[in-house]
Amino acid sequence: MTGSTALLTDRYELTMLDASLADGTYARESVFEVFGRRLPLGRRYGVVAGTGRLLELINRFRFGDAELDWLRAEHVVSAHTLDWLADYRFTGTITGYREGEVYFPGSPILTVEAPFAEGVILETLVLSVLNYDSAIATAASRMVHAAAGRPIAEMGSRRANEDAAVAATRAAFIAGFSASSNLEAGRVWGIPTMGTAAHAFTLLHDTEEEAFRSQVAAMGVGTTLLVDTYDVAEGIETAIRVAGPELGGVRLDSGDLPKLVGKVRAQLDALGATGTKITVTNDLDEYAIAALSASPVDSYGVGTSLVTGSGAPAAGMVYKLVAHKTDEGEWIPVAKKSDGKASVGGRKVPIRHLDSSGTATAEVVHVLTTRPPRDAGRELLVTLMADGEADASFVGAGGVAAARLHNAKAIDELPEEAFRLGAGDPALHTLFV
Amino acid sequence: MTGSTALLTDRYELTMLDASLADGTYARESVFEVFGRRLPLGRRYGVVAGTGRLLELINRFRFGDAELDWLRAEHVVSAHTLDWLADYRFTGTITGYREGEVYFPGSPILTVEAPFAEGVILETLVLSVLNYDSAIATAASRMVHAAAGRPIAEMGSRRANEDAAVAATRAAFIAGFSASSNLEAGRVWGIPTMGTAAHAFTLLHDTEEEAFRSQVAAMGVGTTLLVDTYDVAEGIETAIRVAGPELGGVRLDSGDLPKLVGKVRAQLDALGATGTKITVTNDLDEYAIAALSASPVDSYGVGTSLVTGSGAPAAGMVYKLVAHKTDEGEWIPVAKKSDGKASVGGRKVPIRHLDSSGTATAEVVHVLTTRPPRDAGRELLVTLMADGEADASFVGAGGVAAARLHNAKAIDELPEEAFRLGAGDPALHTLFV
Repeated sequence: MTGSTALLTDRYELTMLDASLADGTYARESVFEVFGRRLPLGRRYGVVAGTGRLLELINRFRFGDAELDWLRAEHVVSAHTLDWLADYRFTGTITGYREGEVYFPGSPILTVEAPFAEGVILETLVLSVLNYDSAIATAASRMVHAAAGRPIAEMGSRRANEDAAVAATRAAFIAGFSASSNLEAGRVWGIPTMGTAAHAFTLLHDTEEEAFRSQVAAMGVGTTLLVDTYDVAEGIETAIRVAGPELGGVRLDSGDLPKLVGKVRAQLDALGATGTKITVTNDLDEYAIAALSASPVDSYGVGTSLVTGSGAPAAGMVYKLVAHKTDEGEWIPVAKKSDGKASVGGRKVPIRHLDSSGTATAEVVHVLTTRPPRDAGRELLVTLMADGEADASFVGAGGVAAARLHNAKAIDELPEEAFRLGAGDPALHTLFV
Repeated sequence: MTGSTALLTDRYELTMLDASLADGTYARESVFEVFGRRLPLGRRYGVVAGTGRLLELINRFRFGDAELDWLRAEHVVSAHTLDWLADYRFTGTITGYREGEVYFPGSPILTVEAPFAEGVILETLVLSVLNYDSAIATAASRMVHAAAGRPIAEMGSRRANEDAAVAATRAAFIAGFSASSNLEAGRVWGIPTMGTAAHAFTLLHDTEEEAFRSQVAAMGVGTTLLVDTYDVAEGIETAIRVAGPELGGVRLDSGDLPKLVGKVRAQLDALGATGTKITVTNDLDEYAIAALSASPVDSYGVGTSLVTGSGAPAAGMVYKLVAHKTDEGEWIPVAKKSDGKASVGGRKVPIRHLDSSGTATAEVVHVLTTRPPRDAGRELLVTLMADGEADASFVGAGGVAAARLHNAKAIDELPEEAFRLGAGDPALHTLFV
């Protein structure tokens, strides 16, 4: 987590910088806004994630010799622009939704205020982080709700890019997952890690019983034994024979789970292992989890569907210039006008309206170039970075813990229809006023 | 690209290691195999990617103080296991499909031969890299075919995790993409980069004409102007007035492209700009590209659908123990037996059968524990890493260039039905013999 992030950037940002330095517009005070035009796949709400990671990555957005030498060799920008990049450090202000906050179409999730040159080159990094992490958190939140209080662990690292996997774990934890298999996420973000054994461990040994004896010897009877390498019923019998009825848990990673889980519970109970937990991990998503709600499952492990956003692997957020100062010092809102991708210009102040019971009723976005209004609702913007300095409460493992707490509160405000799994309209309307 | 990759690992790999060190099975010579049970989404073939990256990441799979201290504090493994990890360096042999090779269900894409302890802890890293990169390369290959010789550039970094984006660019280039917007991919992997300006650049200026003048002044008349910020027809008129008929290109990022492109070509031609190219970049995937085949498009830019694998963001490969030596020194094949996830035990040697015209006819996988057979087809395995040392021809920018060349050859061997975009059976049957 120490390298430069400066070239995690699309080339056009540097060519725009180059031209704006030449024509003088680079210095115009500008407002860039991150928002999603719609929620993916008919989802009812989105969950903002990645913010804390992003603040740290912006601090590492510096052009060192390796970056500058390559840009020079490739003639990407002029010598003057290279000098400017060598001194680059973001000095602007970033406000936005707290990490863990829920969002809706048009919600101004992040606002970057800086001279054009400073803000324009952050586009790709900002979007990469927020689009992936928010897609994962949004999917994770649906799974957490489907699990209805049962613990749910993230085990999808093998189905995501190796670095993305760590970010996915972090996003899932913010959205309410209880733990992860990913050790780096444990080390860097303070997320509880879990895991005991794969089929390879059983297959390595001459018999399943030898494998179980070895695992219990190393990890104690509180461990979870994977019982489906050969035959599940025999595996369970062997597991209890080896570990006794105090065995912590059994894991099922194959088969027709709604049928199988009931049988396994009955067999465990008959063997006296009434406290032995059942964890299931076979290609689960929010729908499969919901389908197991009546089964005696104790915990879930989710892999592929989590790290790929369960059908929506990118949140679809965009980073748009929405206002800038003219040479006369006047703020003007700006927006693309042509077909299909129109957006709302101007700096925005979003308020979540709540009814008397505290349930959210609308996302009201005030379009301003100056000051926020007073309102009955909950103000959604916080200052994440002021004059280039990140607010320490949002970064690191502490930021993750805070985001997880905030997510739980924001989710609690949502109306019940927000939690339907089927495709539909956003749970709140976004009103621009 | 210098940090340790050792904790990009699921916890259960270290707990299996721990138990196997305690019971002595850790030293059993083992064969782990990477394969996909099926191709995603009814695809006709897959493209292997990530191999060169993986070899470098395995070289960085070392446990330093930061990793060991955290594992100790979290009580993940015993003190004895920590000592073993401190000395860990992979010393085994890895054979596999060349990067860029095409693959089918059951193709043994990568084979890791090492003592159990050395191989088991690489599972997550191996799968993370191959699953993501191969998913992207597989999607990219379909887009390249749909583009039918027109250049196609990768522009999706903003819709992928920031590190995954660099890997996606690399995978797309191997599968035949011509360039990328991602600067880090240019620096690290030698991939050509491209890009000129976004809507923000036009919106920053007081008029579209001022923006175009600035861009042409900085980048010359050979640049590509984005003409759809306000009104496309006016934008084109302005573009040619500013740059003259020698303008390099115009970019369209919105609208109903099949209709729009023809109009734009006619307008450019009428203005004398017959050599000005048209590049389109509006939410393209392989189907949208195919739908534009009769339109006068000169080049494509693809974003979201590329970096998310166009509906299949993970290739679904698994890493399985398929054989190990017993204490008596005998190789035995092993495989999970229970429902739904059965696999074929034993070390494998894959051969691609070709007919007399050089067209591939079958993927024949010989299941062996000893030596490969002689055969009429093309042998698919190469040695990627011997005794822990990566073959230098597969890594770095040189490895990427070689993989791109190899991909073109492997694609050329495929029968015509491999290139249908609709869902269907794999283009080749995989036969285990």
